[in-house]
Amino acid sequence: MKPSMHAPRRRLLDALVGDDGTEALLGDEAQLAAMLAFERALAEAEADAGLIGNDAAAAIASAIDRFTVDWDDLAAGLAQDGVVVPALVRQLRTAVGEPHGQFVHHGATSQDVIDTALVLQLARIVALFLDRIAELQSALAALSAASAAMPLMAHTQMQAALPFTVAEKLRTWLEPLGRHHASLSGIRRQLLVVQLGGPIGDRSTFSGKGVQVARGLARLLDLGIAEPWHATRDPIVAFGSLLSLITGSLGKIGADVALMAQTEVASIKLSAGGGSSAMAHKSNPVNAEVLVALARYNAGLVGTLHQSIVHENERSGAAWTLEWLTLPQIIVTTGASLRLATRLTSQIHFQP
Amino acid sequence: MKPSMHAPRRRLLDALVGDDGTEALLGDEAQLAAMLAFERALAEAEADAGLIGNDAAAAIASAIDRFTVDWDDLAAGLAQDGVVVPALVRQLRTAVGEPHGQFVHHGATSQDVIDTALVLQLARIVALFLDRIAELQSALAALSAASAAMPLMAHTQMQAALPFTVAEKLRTWLEPLGRHHASLSGIRRQLLVVQLGGPIGDRSTFSGKGVQVARGLARLLDLGIAEPWHATRDPIVAFGSLLSLITGSLGKIGADVALMAQTEVASIKLSAGGGSSAMAHKSNPVNAEVLVALARYNAGLVGTLHQSIVHENERSGAAWTLEWLTLPQIIVTTGASLRLATRLTSQIHFQP
Amino acid sequence: MKPSMHAPRRRLLDALVGDDGTEALLGDEAQLAAMLAFERALAEAEADAGLIGNDAAAAIASAIDRFTVDWDDLAAGLAQDGVVVPALVRQLRTAVGEPHGQFVHHGATSQDVIDTALVLQLARIVALFLDRIAELQSALAALSAASAAMPLMAHTQMQAALPFTVAEKLRTWLEPLGRHHASLSGIRRQLLVVQLGGPIGDRSTFSGKGVQVARGLARLLDLGIAEPWHATRDPIVAFGSLLSLITGSLGKIGADVALMAQTEVASIKLSAGGGSSAMAHKSNPVNAEVLVALARYNAGLVGTLHQSIVHENERSGAAWTLEWLTLPQIIVTTGASLRLATRLTSQIHFQP
Amino acid sequence: MKPSMHAPRRRLLDALVGDDGTEALLGDEAQLAAMLAFERALAEAEADAGLIGNDAAAAIASAIDRFTVDWDDLAAGLAQDGVVVPALVRQLRTAVGEPHGQFVHHGATSQDVIDTALVLQLARIVALFLDRIAELQSALAALSAASAAMPLMAHTQMQAALPFTVAEKLRTWLEPLGRHHASLSGIRRQLLVVQLGGPIGDRSTFSGKGVQVARGLARLLDLGIAEPWHATRDPIVAFGSLLSLITGSLGKIGADVALMAQTEVASIKLSAGGGSSAMAHKSNPVNAEVLVALARYNAGLVGTLHQSIVHENERSGAAWTLEWLTLPQIIVTTGASLRLATRLTSQIHFQP
Repeated sequence: MKPSMHAPRRRLLDALVGDDGTEALLGDEAQLAAMLAFERALAEAEADAGLIGNDAAAAIASAIDRFTVDWDDLAAGLAQDGVVVPALVRQLRTAVGEPHGQFVHHGATSQDVIDTALVLQLARIVALFLDRIAELQSALAALSAASAAMPLMAHTQMQAALPFTVAEKLRTWLEPLGRHHASLSGIRRQLLVVQLGGPIGDRSTFSGKGVQVARGLARLLDLGIAEPWHATRDPIVAFGSLLSLITGSLGKIGADVALMAQTEVASIKLSAGGGSSAMAHKSNPVNAEVLVALARYNAGLVGTLHQSIVHENERSGAAWTLEWLTLPQIIVTTGASLRLATRLTSQIHFQP
Repeated sequence: MKPSMHAPRRRLLDALVGDDGTEALLGDEAQLAAMLAFERALAEAEADAGLIGNDAAAAIASAIDRFTVDWDDLAAGLAQDGVVVPALVRQLRTAVGEPHGQFVHHGATSQDVIDTALVLQLARIVALFLDRIAELQSALAALSAASAAMPLMAHTQMQAALPFTVAEKLRTWLEPLGRHHASLSGIRRQLLVVQLGGPIGDRSTFSGKGVQVARGLARLLDLGIAEPWHATRDPIVAFGSLLSLITGSLGKIGADVALMAQTEVASIKLSAGGGSSAMAHKSNPVNAEVLVALARYNAGLVGTLHQSIVHENERSGAAWTLEWLTLPQIIVTTGASLRLATRLTSQIHFQP
Repeated sequence: MKPSMHAPRRRLLDALVGDDGTEALLGDEAQLAAMLAFERALAEAEADAGLIGNDAAAAIASAIDRFTVDWDDLAAGLAQDGVVVPALVRQLRTAVGEPHGQFVHHGATSQDVIDTALVLQLARIVALFLDRIAELQSALAALSAASAAMPLMAHTQMQAALPFTVAEKLRTWLEPLGRHHASLSGIRRQLLVVQLGGPIGDRSTFSGKGVQVARGLARLLDLGIAEPWHATRDPIVAFGSLLSLITGSLGKIGADVALMAQTEVASIKLSAGGGSSAMAHKSNPVNAEVLVALARYNAGLVGTLHQSIVHENERSGAAWTLEWLTLPQIIVTTGASLRLATRLTSQIHFQP
Repeated sequence: MKPSMHAPRRRLLDALVGDDGTEALLGDEAQLAAMLAFERALAEAEADAGLIGNDAAAAIASAIDRFTVDWDDLAAGLAQDGVVVPALVRQLRTAVGEPHGQFVHHGATSQDVIDTALVLQLARIVALFLDRIAELQSALAALSAASAAMPLMAHTQMQAALPFTVAEKLRTWLEPLGRHHASLSGIRRQLLVVQLGGPIGDRSTFSGKGVQVARGLARLLDLGIAEPWHATRDPIVAFGSLLSLITGSLGKIGADVALMAQTEVASIKLSAGGGSSAMAHKSNPVNAEVLVALARYNAGLVGTLHQSIVHENERSGAAWTLEWLTLPQIIVTTGASLRLATRLTSQIHFQP
């Protein structure tokens, strides 16, 4: 059983601001699976390179297939070591047993496992978000088509300006999404790359075969190849920044909807507004407001994530932990924002 | 069963950066208990003021004693309404039944319940943190006493400057803690106050007895009295700011320890450094580095919390949700930081 | 001539978001005057304590009276040393000449001068802001009195809720100002204190008379006394946090005004809205919108300021520079926000 | 004379953290020149499209050639209107005189002028930064070549790990710079595009010839073409995010240098360390520390810039002003950081 399973948890709020689909790709189980995939592929790549025996690689693969993790021990190890890998490697080596256990994690360091595992998780998250953006684009395009020529009052600086149309309005919502989809698709080449550097990021522990092992690993895990990036995390931070652009653009849609759905403006009617515990007549633009909140939240988190680029030396425990504290939340917030934007779109009815 | 219970969750990291003691005071169960305490006290105060009957208040109290919440329904209500209160009030009214169910939550609004419940939770959190600061002060004072006169090289701008003593060093760690303890103690008068305003914060739904009901509520819940503060959240943000001062000061201690424990400096030896998956000789200053990470994380969060002061009108769903996204994390981060600072202190050995 | 005087500067924007009154108290000249006041008082306090001769103190005072700074040299020194003090002390020692020049800055370090000078500047800024808050409170009280009973629609979550009155609305604007005035007044005791620590903050360079010199300095400069706080900057950060609470509360007023002045809502008419280069009929709520922008700007800056608490060792050049980059901007932003809030109040006309 | 010219200004600090070269490209004069270039090109493009007469375009071009701005009036206009354009257009129309003055700014809105002018300024800034990154890459490559094989102790989590070489170390500094150069080069296509939308961003004021005018404008100003992006600012925010990646990577170099230059580590000796006002033996790593400060400052600013994506409706005065408050500072900070990184590189001497 996982050690903090007993503690009362804040979870209810996730019904509003969370996203189960994204959480599932970021959870402990997903991370563990990705770390095991790394260790398995590492052994295979090292066997291919002649660094460890084929029988060792086979024993490691077989043990990983059968592996049952001890979560309590992982948690205790994480609290002690600041990274979960020493405990995990101990467990794996025991599972493999003699004489091959010693070849688990051969030449690698914590960052190799955790970062490559992260990248494996990000690959699925990028795919999920690309799908969701496309889905939202379709929903907005359909909404636009349904009322394209309907006149709408444009507003600048919170004042009625001149009339335009629903199609013009929707164009401004759709256009950034096209950019974000392209950027997210394009960032994969830089982001979805293997991490393999050994203790200090110079691959010296792979007996001159570091490049070969890294290539094998990349091939086995369907990732790109890269120089070790233990302490140069700008692609990670660039990814977080892009996600905040997405939630910002969705927050702008939310702000627009909340303004257009105002009682006095009424150019939008929402089909399922939120109820009030005190005023039966209220229909609150809940999803629109939450989109604004998520945009502002991610904007703040991305500022903090940028703080984490300043890694001391070959690895900063402080900076790396700061990345762990912020990146997953940026991702979940983005997942929630995409989920809510599509739901909100389905609730919008433009009013003539 | 709670609806998101099925989803894989990120929890392992909490072994490093979380704090079960603080989480317990912020969890769903704690919030529910506090909301029920509010509704019970509200009914009693309203009966005292003659707004509802004594039998209604008794029926409400009795139903709350026996109440079993439907978490799924709460979560669905939260997702629909943006606040959990409409669903909770429906459940409570059903639990009370006819003819008294209608008097549950009489005249109140979501913000009255949630904010007063928050304040009840904060009261316990402030008490916990005051205890932990005092505990840390004692530990640091003992550490200082043990090596007071031991010489230590002072460093300015990352360069050796002039020698001083452990006592001088420890004074700089201790002094801010004294300020924080005093500030945290002093903030209670402004922070731990009842919220009662009704739908738009003017107490008009209490038939002219709003002040009386608010006073009764305050007395029953052992809170201070205040004008409704639905949309004026500066005391909440001031509290978050103070917590970030605390984690900042502890982050400074962490930075100092990590610097003094450097292999080449070695003026501190840590008795339980973190292990490496690759280098057996390493003893990493894990707790010290995590203190730095938590300080930077809270600094970022507090900036975002300050964004939430800009409430539109009589209540902003966007700003309030943003507060929910940041304040609990600031609090847990502070709890974790205090926990780790005390642990780190116990691991420090100054070296001559 | 000051070295960067030649460079084209961004200044036009200050007409919108700046504040000359506040800038004047923070400018180079103000800082220089405060640093000279420190050095003069230090010499006098040290003469009183018998650390330097009375004739040296007199010579220093006299030279400071006649002193003409070389700004180019100061700037070059700042670029070289990271602090302006070594260059300034050189200039001052030359100005004093032999035999007393060597006693300028006796036992002190850069941080003693710069921090005490900062505090002297902050004393005037706190006084200015207290006046401005009081002025704004008066203006809002008068506005409230003029239309107290006028009905107004209250809005929650961007929807019309229930009617209340202008007086109720204004209460929510005024109440935080009362808290901020009290907090700003109260913070002086902790904030407006002398800095005197010597090179590593232990006063060891004052031959056992550090406390006496610090007391003399405090008396001469009309400041409070404190232990050296070179690397424990939480009172500075607490001050910045308080300022952001102020701009946040004013940003909330700005958001409310912009919403109430919407064409479709029209519960406020502004007497001097901003014009458009394209639409003659527009009257934009410029000051209201700028208040929101300033609130969000300060919220971000205060998050960054909190990052600066993490000082390495006895002084961090990095953290201190980060404070210099943020605190003055927070202050000017607050000055501008108070200025604009009072102006905006004078433009508000509630509409029945 | 410019109106705020009288006020004492903070400028001395710019000797440490500013950058005259970048400031010059962002100053009022540069902005004015770019706005005039826009109005001149607009008139020419509109004449080409038959929207205004060729004689009007010629008169406008001629007047702009001879134009002397009234800065006081611009500043007063900015304070009144929240944008400088109405005042500027009035001045220009007067300068052109009858009968052609009315055709100045024909069909355009403030955002068209200011945003296109910004983009013209950014074009030069991007070119400057590309040059500076290349210069820094050369300097680092030369430094690496000079000591490539020199052994160096690698450090992870603030502890000595294993030895590697100067070349390995420098690789980790150089690699992100390659990415940043490529990203900065690549972002031009999306960033350096004309803004032309008219009052509400739908080009309806260009009598059906909006696309043609936009194309002409783009050609004349050597910019790309784009749909109006008044309220969809993600490319601007993406640019700011990229700049913060740059300063973050340089901050990491600064942190490394400060750590390696520690007295006790001494693997780097700096040829021109900063002096102390109190300790003659000190040689402080000023530039290294400032790089860290600038990285943290930009990280915070970029978080605030992300807040500005949430534009209300067709233009938000609040969000746009927030962009003005943050983007120029991010740019200047980046210029300063690049300047200091190259200077720092020239001061580094690795020690065996």
